[in-house]
Amino acid sequence: MMESWSFLDTVESNFRPLVVIELAKGTKEETIEWFTKRIVDKKANGGAQLLIKPLVTENGVENIYLVGASHLRLLLGAETVGLVKECSDNSMRTFTYSSRKTFKHFADDNHNFLTMAECQYIIKHELENLRAKNEKMIPGYPQAKLYPGKSIVRRLLTSGILVQIFPLHDREELKKLSHSWYGRVKVGYQPLDDIRCYFGETIALYFGFLEYFTFALIPMAVIGIPYYMFAWEDYDKYVMFATFNLLWSTVILEVWKRICAILTYRWGTLLMKRQFEEPRPGFHGVLGINPVTGREEPVYSSIKRQLRIYLVSLPFVCLCLYFSLYVMMIYFDLEQWALDYHKENESNFSSLMLYVPSIIYAVVIEIMNRIYRYAAEFLTSWENHRLESSYQNHLILKVLVFNFLNCFASLFYIAFVLFDMKLLRQSLATLLITSQILNQFAESLLPYWLQKRYNRRMKKRMCSKKTDTDLSLAEQVNMEKEMGTYLGTFDDYLELFLQFGYVSLFSCVYPLAAVFAVLNNITEIYSDALKMCRVYKRPFAEPTANIGVWQLAFETMSVISVVTNCVLIGMSPEVDALFPDSKTDLVLTVALVEHLLLAIKFIMAFVIPDKPREIQTKLAKLEFESLEALKQQVTAFQMQLHFLSIHQ
Amino acid sequence: MMESWSFLDTVESNFRPLVVIELAKGTKEETIEWFTKRIVDKKANGGAQLLIKPLVTENGVENIYLVGASHLRLLLGAETVGLVKECSDNSMRTFTYSSRKTFKHFADDNHNFLTMAECQYIIKHELENLRAKNEKMIPGYPQAKLYPGKSIVRRLLTSGILVQIFPLHDREELKKLSHSWYGRVKVGYQPLDDIRCYFGETIALYFGFLEYFTFALIPMAVIGIPYYMFAWEDYDKYVMFATFNLLWSTVILEVWKRICAILTYRWGTLLMKRQFEEPRPGFHGVLGINPVTGREEPVYSSIKRQLRIYLVSLPFVCLCLYFSLYVMMIYFDLEQWALDYHKENESNFSSLMLYVPSIIYAVVIEIMNRIYRYAAEFLTSWENHRLESSYQNHLILKVLVFNFLNCFASLFYIAFVLFDMKLLRQSLATLLITSQILNQFAESLLPYWLQKRYNRRMKKRMCSKKTDTDLSLAEQVNMEKEMGTYLGTFDDYLELFLQFGYVSLFSCVYPLAAVFAVLNNITEIYSDALKMCRVYKRPFAEPTANIGVWQLAFETMSVISVVTNCVLIGMSPEVDALFPDSKTDLVLTVALVEHLLLAIKFIMAFVIPDKPREIQTKLAKLEFESLEALKQQVTAFQMQLHFLSIHQ
Repeated sequence: MMESWSFLDTVESNFRPLVVIELAKGTKEETIEWFTKRIVDKKANGGAQLLIKPLVTENGVENIYLVGASHLRLLLGAETVGLVKECSDNSMRTFTYSSRKTFKHFADDNHNFLTMAECQYIIKHELENLRAKNEKMIPGYPQAKLYPGKSIVRRLLTSGILVQIFPLHDREELKKLSHSWYGRVKVGYQPLDDIRCYFGETIALYFGFLEYFTFALIPMAVIGIPYYMFAWEDYDKYVMFATFNLLWSTVILEVWKRICAILTYRWGTLLMKRQFEEPRPGFHGVLGINPVTGREEPVYSSIKRQLRIYLVSLPFVCLCLYFSLYVMMIYFDLEQWALDYHKENESNFSSLMLYVPSIIYAVVIEIMNRIYRYAAEFLTSWENHRLESSYQNHLILKVLVFNFLNCFASLFYIAFVLFDMKLLRQSLATLLITSQILNQFAESLLPYWLQKRYNRRMKKRMCSKKTDTDLSLAEQVNMEKEMGTYLGTFDDYLELFLQFGYVSLFSCVYPLAAVFAVLNNITEIYSDALKMCRVYKRPFAEPTANIGVWQLAFETMSVISVVTNCVLIGMSPEVDALFPDSKTDLVLTVALVEHLLLAIKFIMAFVIPDKPREIQTKLAKLEFESLEALKQQVTAFQMQLHFLSIHQ
Repeated sequence: MMESWSFLDTVESNFRPLVVIELAKGTKEETIEWFTKRIVDKKANGGAQLLIKPLVTENGVENIYLVGASHLRLLLGAETVGLVKECSDNSMRTFTYSSRKTFKHFADDNHNFLTMAECQYIIKHELENLRAKNEKMIPGYPQAKLYPGKSIVRRLLTSGILVQIFPLHDREELKKLSHSWYGRVKVGYQPLDDIRCYFGETIALYFGFLEYFTFALIPMAVIGIPYYMFAWEDYDKYVMFATFNLLWSTVILEVWKRICAILTYRWGTLLMKRQFEEPRPGFHGVLGINPVTGREEPVYSSIKRQLRIYLVSLPFVCLCLYFSLYVMMIYFDLEQWALDYHKENESNFSSLMLYVPSIIYAVVIEIMNRIYRYAAEFLTSWENHRLESSYQNHLILKVLVFNFLNCFASLFYIAFVLFDMKLLRQSLATLLITSQILNQFAESLLPYWLQKRYNRRMKKRMCSKKTDTDLSLAEQVNMEKEMGTYLGTFDDYLELFLQFGYVSLFSCVYPLAAVFAVLNNITEIYSDALKMCRVYKRPFAEPTANIGVWQLAFETMSVISVVTNCVLIGMSPEVDALFPDSKTDLVLTVALVEHLLLAIKFIMAFVIPDKPREIQTKLAKLEFESLEALKQQVTAFQMQLHFLSIHQ
């Protein structure tokens, strides 16, 4: 069945494997035949017109297939997904096959015009858009129902016939990338453009944000150190520090939008048109007509979903929040007990015991966060959102609220109920450092170590002493398919978000937080890079124009931090001493200052443009050109009319 | 020169005048000849391809010209400006001439397919886009320089050769509209769709907002009346009222966005693409290259403009604000003097005198507002903004800040410095009622009276006793060209904005404000309608999709009102009595409630979608269709490639 290459591929002599498809063991022969036929079939017949080859290893065929595509097919695919590339005149334009000659570095024999990540993204898009025609089911699996327009690959995935689809690593490129990224100890920027070429925009943007955020924290850290060294107990000097921090955090979030625009303009994703979103794989419902597309697809009542959200998910989240507060109260009991114990015994052991409750609490928080995460994923999936983006937003909201409370409730309690600044500082330090160490360990080092051990065993079994780049294709595929799957940037952003909370919410009592954050982020860059390159399967590139809902989350955090810092400053004895007669005046002054700061924040956010002038001009230019093109079409049509009227 | 009709117009037998062009008396013959030739010239030759006829009155030709266009020309123009019309299947689509048959009510002989306002908008657009080719100056006027691409009409206007361009009224339609709008006393909605057909979307949207806002205020007014009647001094009961008001004002602003989307979807402007903005008429600078269009046009350095804004305009505005505060302090001195006088004399006259300072102050505020308005217009014009929208935004910001301070500073002073609730209530009532009466008088009744007197004199002179609809075209044009020019919705929105401030900022001390606002708005609808139909020249229709910066202004006001109301409630003796031990607890509680209310406001604004689901679906459907069309183009191209490769 592999012989019937479509016409476009006769030009292509060498097959370059890009994407791996793993089918379940024991998949029926007719299914495989039907599926591969659909993949290679011509576009006009409803196929994907890609190339596919079974992977042959020493053990014979293993239900693993390699997918590639001809150069021409990829270029046409680039047009379909709406890739934006740089033209010869340095402007960014949507790629079309007919205008291909105007693009920079384009040549008919230059197969590197599209990066490997782009090629893999195109293949993924084509595979996912391979739709059922009039098949009622997947051949061989009557229980796996199909309807016209249903994505075949998604049905195969949900019915377990398709185990996984993943893009292949390029060992050569990866080696180069990892060398320039984390291979040598150097001071400098990350190779963001290379990261983007290899891993796609979403991941490159995360690393860009991580790097930017680390740089942005340095001023806070630098100013924080002398405060820590010389003025540990002088709260009134912290007023300056806190004010600086509050305004600074607004500035850095606004400036990030500009930097993000510069990056994504250069990468073309700022200009990419949003594609129509298909239902997410887990979405189910009775067959109906989608009012937008007019196509048959599962339909699920929006009212039912709202009921599920407000009657089940919301109460559950509230219950979890309550439970989290309950655990917090237990922690404070433990803390009190440890303090009493220390007072009674006064030994080295007892002073060590003082730290035990905080450490236990930090560990418990991490565990609770992880368990809650599974519950939130289950619930959000049960809410049955039609779109992946809507699912993601609901999940992020649930997880954010819980994580926020879990991490910061005890600090709020210490600060605003117990009024114990010393304990606050101590808890903040313990929580921050513990969670950072735990995260680095659980996220990167542990999987890396497991992966390394597994690889060593694998290699031993293969009795080979080759380095990674020398592996045969079959060996490479077999190794990569066992690697863990990178689940997206969610956890990485969440970690940064909580860190931002530690740094900004109570910045006026613990100026060292920024120092620890900077130190952590430097190692985080390395460990995350290691994780991407060595621990996980290569992820598919995802074009994106911004960091999405996280921008909002960070901005909300910075608003909350204005409130907390103002209250903390108002509570300090030094500020208190400025209003000896009336505490009311103090509170009023603090409230006034707080509103002033918030007003300044909002005005600053409003005044600083989201995109640099240069990018604005470039975008305006593109818009102008498309309007002009439209006008010329109209004029051409009018000319034609003119011509007709003359010759009638 | 009028004989050379272009080919499109041979079809047209009857010339329908749509737009009037008035040239200055004594304009040189060669200029007139050149200008009219350019107007009638074919598109292909860079003309506007419109029809133009001189107006012949009893006194001969008067340099007044009537502009029209053939039916076909208007349809092609509708495509150029990107009009969106309803299709036969009830969906809204961008009109194109080639797909004209699919549109509702389209027929080749149906000349009402485009409304008269749309036709006039198209003609205005075509006239403004009539550009210089290689003329260096306007023939006959060497000082009126031109450069390739410069809008001829704008240069004619700025050099005073062109006195005015305005669209003609349709006396029949106007009579029908004014009858259904304000002709009879009835309870019911305004004929918004008819208003939109006659005056365009911007004005219809203003009346829609005015009507919606009036309806939205009714609950506040209804709840306010019993509070006024029975609980005048019981501040604690106002807590409920104020809370209701705060949440209600958030809800009405959010719901307005949805209603606005429904209206503008129906009118097609929600889908209209933004046109590229040309420099505004007053913009000047040295000739350079526009980086967006690549065309020659005046260029003015953005840094110079920023310097003008921050070094001149900003200090000037601050000075004006200071002056306004100074006037306010004089008012308080006067107030004190009147009070003393009343105490000394205790006569009827002296009790009447108590109201005099407030009334004087209200009048002075109105005068200052108007003077400042001119200064702001001058300054903003001097800042030399390239775009009309940028000019408008800077002007609105300047005027808003000053008006806000001017109207509310005294109330803030009374409330939060003097702590005199009785005086606050009295001042609020005086200010609100005086400004409403003044506005209605100055805006509509006075011009209406002047206009009527003028018309009577005109008619007497013409010795005719005809009604308005019987007037000859020449008489109509002569009458309309003397009418005042409607300067846009700015003043009308500003009035509503200040009214919203009176209602919401201090709603908990003066619940009757909403009642007065409702009463005022009902008469306002009538007087504004009268103003539009009888007092002013017909304005050109302006397509718009929302109320723009005013939405933001109203939302900001509702945020400020949360703060003021919370403080007012906190200051009331009844709430004070709830915290007998500590005033600090009171302030803390108030601050907590305020933050809670603000948080609820923002969450509500976030949760309520800006567009109703139905409109969202329709928009998504259109987007989906255009994506599909694009894909089919790509597929068709691929098919063609296939065909070629087979037949090679």
